[in-house]
Amino acid sequence: TFTRGIQTVTLIPGDGIGPEISTAVMKIFEAAEAPIQWEERNVTAIQGPGGKWMIPPDAKESMDRNKIGLKGPLKTPIAAGHPSMNLLLRKTFDLYANVRPCVSIEGYKTPYSDVNLVTIRENTEGEYSGIEHVIVDGVVQSIKLITEQASQRIADYAFEYARNNQRASVTAVHKANIMRMSDGLFLRKCREAAEKHKDVKFTEMYLDTVCLNMVQDPTQFDVLVMPNLYGDILSDLCAGLIGGLGVTPSGNIGANGVAIFESVHGTAPDIAGKDMANPTALLLSAVMMLRHMGLHGHAKKIEAACFDTIRDEKVRTKDLGGNSKCSEFTEAICQRVRDMQ
Amino acid sequence: TFTRGIQTVTLIPGDGIGPEISTAVMKIFEAAEAPIQWEERNVTAIQGPGGKWMIPPDAKESMDRNKIGLKGPLKTPIAAGHPSMNLLLRKTFDLYANVRPCVSIEGYKTPYSDVNLVTIRENTEGEYSGIEHVIVDGVVQSIKLITEQASQRIADYAFEYARNNQRASVTAVHKANIMRMSDGLFLRKCREAAEKHKDVKFTEMYLDTVCLNMVQDPTQFDVLVMPNLYGDILSDLCAGLIGGLGVTPSGNIGANGVAIFESVHGTAPDIAGKDMANPTALLLSAVMMLRHMGLHGHAKKIEAACFDTIRDEKVRTKDLGGNSKCSEFTEAICQRVRDMQ
Ligand SMILES: CC(C)[C@H](C(=O)O)[C@@H](O)C(=O)O
Ligand SMILES: CC(C)[C@H](C(=O)O)[C@@H](O)C(=O)O
Repeated sequence: TFTRGIQTVTLIPGDGIGPEISTAVMKIFEAAEAPIQWEERNVTAIQGPGGKWMIPPDAKESMDRNKIGLKGPLKTPIAAGHPSMNLLLRKTFDLYANVRPCVSIEGYKTPYSDVNLVTIRENTEGEYSGIEHVIVDGVVQSIKLITEQASQRIADYAFEYARNNQRASVTAVHKANIMRMSDGLFLRKCREAAEKHKDVKFTEMYLDTVCLNMVQDPTQFDVLVMPNLYGDILSDLCAGLIGGLGVTPSGNIGANGVAIFESVHGTAPDIAGKDMANPTALLLSAVMMLRHMGLHGHAKKIEAACFDTIRDEKVRTKDLGGNSKCSEFTEAICQRVRDMQ
Repeated sequence: TFTRGIQTVTLIPGDGIGPEISTAVMKIFEAAEAPIQWEERNVTAIQGPGGKWMIPPDAKESMDRNKIGLKGPLKTPIAAGHPSMNLLLRKTFDLYANVRPCVSIEGYKTPYSDVNLVTIRENTEGEYSGIEHVIVDGVVQSIKLITEQASQRIADYAFEYARNNQRASVTAVHKANIMRMSDGLFLRKCREAAEKHKDVKFTEMYLDTVCLNMVQDPTQFDVLVMPNLYGDILSDLCAGLIGGLGVTPSGNIGANGVAIFESVHGTAPDIAGKDMANPTALLLSAVMMLRHMGLHGHAKKIEAACFDTIRDEKVRTKDLGGNSKCSEFTEAICQRVRDMQ
């Protein structure tokens, strides 16, 4: 078989259980002989000239060079004025599309089966603009910013994603009945993108209606595209349907191939360092990363080994209902990967 | 037993299936000998001097006099600039609290059981301020307005509601990690209200986390209080857990006893006039109304008759999995009510 050159990826292990689950992913990648070399970086926020918060220069430089990153959980800063590192990363590299596939995991029972959808969230503006004012004492406004450019970019991305991933439909999620101008603009750009992609079915639905229909029958949905906050909500809701953030991958996609893949669960400080964490979310994010890099064979192999291990039930971490350690679960996946070679 | 005087309630039958389900409610109230007299009013929006949209004066006058209203579904206006009648009613009578109990219906199977929670939504401001601007071509902003006064009012309402309805806890739902000033103000007012109501347990949770936890285990929630848009979303999500908008009641509560109770499903034009509609949501809203008016005996009787009829399975409307007509379902409830007298 044709062997590509080895590619370097920036690895941000993160806090809490981050280092353990990163180690798990590295081991599994090694077992699968994935042509990836890791470059580890920390991303504690630092303050630049003028007090501006930035990610450390060596992390920025690494990402700028490698273009692709894999990231574990980062602890939420508590200092006032300190930005969320997750948001700062999305912003720094203009990662405008947050992509979260939610697919039911065979053998891992939840009230739902056959969920197979993808939420695509605008990742740079909307309710996350950060612009807020006190108008008079006791009256505060937050600005939801919607631009034509960002709306068009994410709408186009959603349709391209559907086309490239053999998905039949895109649903635009909005509240244009209430926010007529802002969500109206977003919706208009989705309609225009739909016109350009007639091979993909297009529907539009109010956010509240999506939530209601989602918990009644999630199988009716395919690709969903929406403004920032709605994506924050819906992606968590959908993760809940298939078993939670411990098994849900996520990718933040920018222009020119730049992307950071991340597990979106917390740092779980209570079990950090105890070899109890579940590396599935980070591993499946790393699988998304492999696909993004065109390494479909490796992606398929690792993904299958992960799902097979969970389906088999013999070796599962505690949160998945088993009593295996993180290292045992990791080794079980490695073994399956090796058996496939 | 002590008999109160007859009270008059403004009845807004609404559009589509509205008149049929209103008739059903009136019949059941008659069977239960509820001391209610109905005053029917239509609420097609009209334009006053200066083009301002208003509800018709005779409807306004009726509500001003009776203070209490029951409302069927109203069709969404299509004319540009025409307001949602639902929103206009909430605004006209300053109905600041939107209250939606979500309780699993015995015998009506959904993926969840033992759901028993109440969403309390701030109903007057937030993302529904209606203030939007085009900044420059292609850049739009919508203003989310949060005031100390409205936040305090809804927070106090939630705790009073919990206390008066023997509910143990209130959860404030927010994104103060992102909208630090606006949701921050809302959250601060909830914390202050919690200080005043130490008998009720208080927790705070991010909206996305609530959504995730809600679909994984809704039984962990009790009373939830939140800004306008979050309530729009969560109330629909929760309705979905127990069977949808066809079985979920809703109340819009203002100051000094003023309130409008409404079914929040659509007008269902496809089945309108065909004696196929399910009156449950409007009936349970009317039961909320009876409790609001202190008529607990009548409320209990009608509610029990409705739930017993659904549990029995013999007489159910189509949307509930049966093949009975609206009138047959209504008569079955009436019969049970009569049997209880
Ligand atoms: C950590 C937090 C700032 C973030 C968000 O609100 O977007 C998280 O909830 C997510 O979905 O990635
Ligand atoms: C009809 C619509 C304007 C309304 C809303 O968005 O509040 C509805 O969804 C509701 O929840 O009552």
